[in-house]
Amino acid sequence: MAKIESPVITQIGIIVRDIEQTSEAYAQFFGIEKPKWMRTDPLEQTEMRYKGQPSEARAKLAFFDMGSVQLELIEPDEHPSTWREFLDTHGEGVHHIAFQINGMKKMLNLLEEGNMPLIQKGEYTGGRYAYVDTLKDLKVILELLENDPKL
Amino acid sequence: MAKIESPVITQIGIIVRDIEQTSEAYAQFFGIEKPKWMRTDPLEQTEMRYKGQPSEARAKLAFFDMGSVQLELIEPDEHPSTWREFLDTHGEGVHHIAFQINGMKKMLNLLEEGNMPLIQKGEYTGGRYAYVDTLKDLKVILELLENDPKL
Repeated sequence: MAKIESPVITQIGIIVRDIEQTSEAYAQFFGIEKPKWMRTDPLEQTEMRYKGQPSEARAKLAFFDMGSVQLELIEPDEHPSTWREFLDTHGEGVHHIAFQINGMKKMLNLLEEGNMPLIQKGEYTGGRYAYVDTLKDLKVILELLENDPKL
Repeated sequence: MAKIESPVITQIGIIVRDIEQTSEAYAQFFGIEKPKWMRTDPLEQTEMRYKGQPSEARAKLAFFDMGSVQLELIEPDEHPSTWREFLDTHGEGVHHIAFQINGMKKMLNLLEEGNMPLIQKGEYTGGRYAYVDTLKDLKVILELLENDPKL
């Protein structure tokens, strides 16, 4: 069985239809500044795979620091992704909980063997992410984040 | 507008059908000990109100510390509660994100005025909780937790 040692939740990811509107609502509710959203990189950079296939999907992301946890708003585009699928099937709401890990490849192999398949993965500047289908056992999708060692 | 100052996420609440089974899955996945679940107190102690009415509802709770955030598993019983309603309408999954606050009464009044009505509230040993319907604006239910000052 795969093990995330000393698990620390670093992000909660929430799928939204309109990142401007929901960012504004969060900013107002908590009396904090509305963060600028950023767009995930294009496929050439992310090498994104969704259910094993390359996808052109991108998302708008906005982050709110709330203690040691980041709340992440995600507005998917129309291309196939776990974000789009969640919005189409569940509507807006909490999509995943994220953990920082080391050794992504090994971890994903162990999870696959444990019947927790990879849903989507991609690279970002400084690291990579993977969403794992842990819904059956853990009742929520997990995101694994691996940052490259700092030079 | 109500404001939670310096918002810090303290808990993520996940509704489950079988707390024994899901606790075991979490314990195995993270290589940690399975916590014992506890049952919420009876109505005489909690003075629980769900949609303004007293309810006999109780839940089994299990907690996992994951950094500064607790992951809380909640197995509702059959009586009316936000937990039961969520399970019946959404199935298992993330039900709420919790914040520690001070001044519960004032906060609930402000939220009500801001069209974010109270869903459910109750007392526990050492404090009280309230679930607020922030779904429309924030896309997730918030739980407010207020601890009594330590004597």
